[in-house]
Amino acid sequence: MTKKIAILATDDFEDSELSEPYERLRDAGFNVLIVGPAADAEIVGKKREFKVTTDLSVDSVSADDFNALVIPGGYSPDRLRLNERAVEFTRAFGTTGKPLAAICHGPQLLISAGLVKSRTLTCWPSITIDIVNAGGHYVDEPLVVDKNLITSRKPGDLPQFINAIIAALSKSENP
Amino acid sequence: MTKKIAILATDDFEDSELSEPYERLRDAGFNVLIVGPAADAEIVGKKREFKVTTDLSVDSVSADDFNALVIPGGYSPDRLRLNERAVEFTRAFGTTGKPLAAICHGPQLLISAGLVKSRTLTCWPSITIDIVNAGGHYVDEPLVVDKNLITSRKPGDLPQFINAIIAALSKSENP
Repeated sequence: MTKKIAILATDDFEDSELSEPYERLRDAGFNVLIVGPAADAEIVGKKREFKVTTDLSVDSVSADDFNALVIPGGYSPDRLRLNERAVEFTRAFGTTGKPLAAICHGPQLLISAGLVKSRTLTCWPSITIDIVNAGGHYVDEPLVVDKNLITSRKPGDLPQFINAIIAALSKSENP
Repeated sequence: MTKKIAILATDDFEDSELSEPYERLRDAGFNVLIVGPAADAEIVGKKREFKVTTDLSVDSVSADDFNALVIPGGYSPDRLRLNERAVEFTRAFGTTGKPLAAICHGPQLLISAGLVKSRTLTCWPSITIDIVNAGGHYVDEPLVVDKNLITSRKPGDLPQFINAIIAALSKSENP
């Protein structure tokens, strides 16, 4: 059965941090679905270089529906922190043990979901202090994998970030 | 002597949170200077509704130069957190006891400057958890004044925010 990946995003995502995982994970044979505040809504990157239509509303999804969750950065995570369902979906997904991947500002949503304490991760440098204040162990590496949690710092880390998602999915069982 | 106010900002500030304090504080008779990463550089709001040319580089200023510091929100504070001089200037200003006003995402810079612990303040709701994790006491009010620290949540709070800055300056002594 084709494994399903949710990319959770809204407007002002970092363009390449949505477009590159979307394209490479589809090319790798996964069923990649864009989950946003509303279904069938166009969301636009902060650089206006990439836009995409959401497949599903975060109101209609469950952590059981997907084999992995990917959270792009940019200012989309700051917006999603205000969406209670997005925070709850992230929190629920974090408890499944299935791969949860966040890049750049993506870990802001992990903080709001209470998933950072005592975990080792990386992020965009502006939010390092927020990760540490949330009880996370910050490391400055292109890719950090702590059990199910996969994190990277910035667009330049995307090749390793996406490879790690693919590797984690090839190990994980179907839900 | 005319009192001097620094507005510390860079690109992607919340337009009205720079333009309204800038205009109203000038109208009130203060010498308002825009401090950014570079002098004589145009900075543009996130809504592209307001742009302004900086007066001074943060590299060239000292906390002694101003009677008050104002930090607009939007995504400017996220960018300024990566500018060591901006963080250091904010930290130094915070130790003077002179009015330090931050609105919306502005308190992100206060977190980076280590000025939040045990202080009572408000902010844009997405960063509430970061304020609490930094040891701040968050309250959901249009205006919070804790000694020298003046904070507000959003553009709708600007009238009270600006009035509080004017009130604080009318009380404070010249440096």
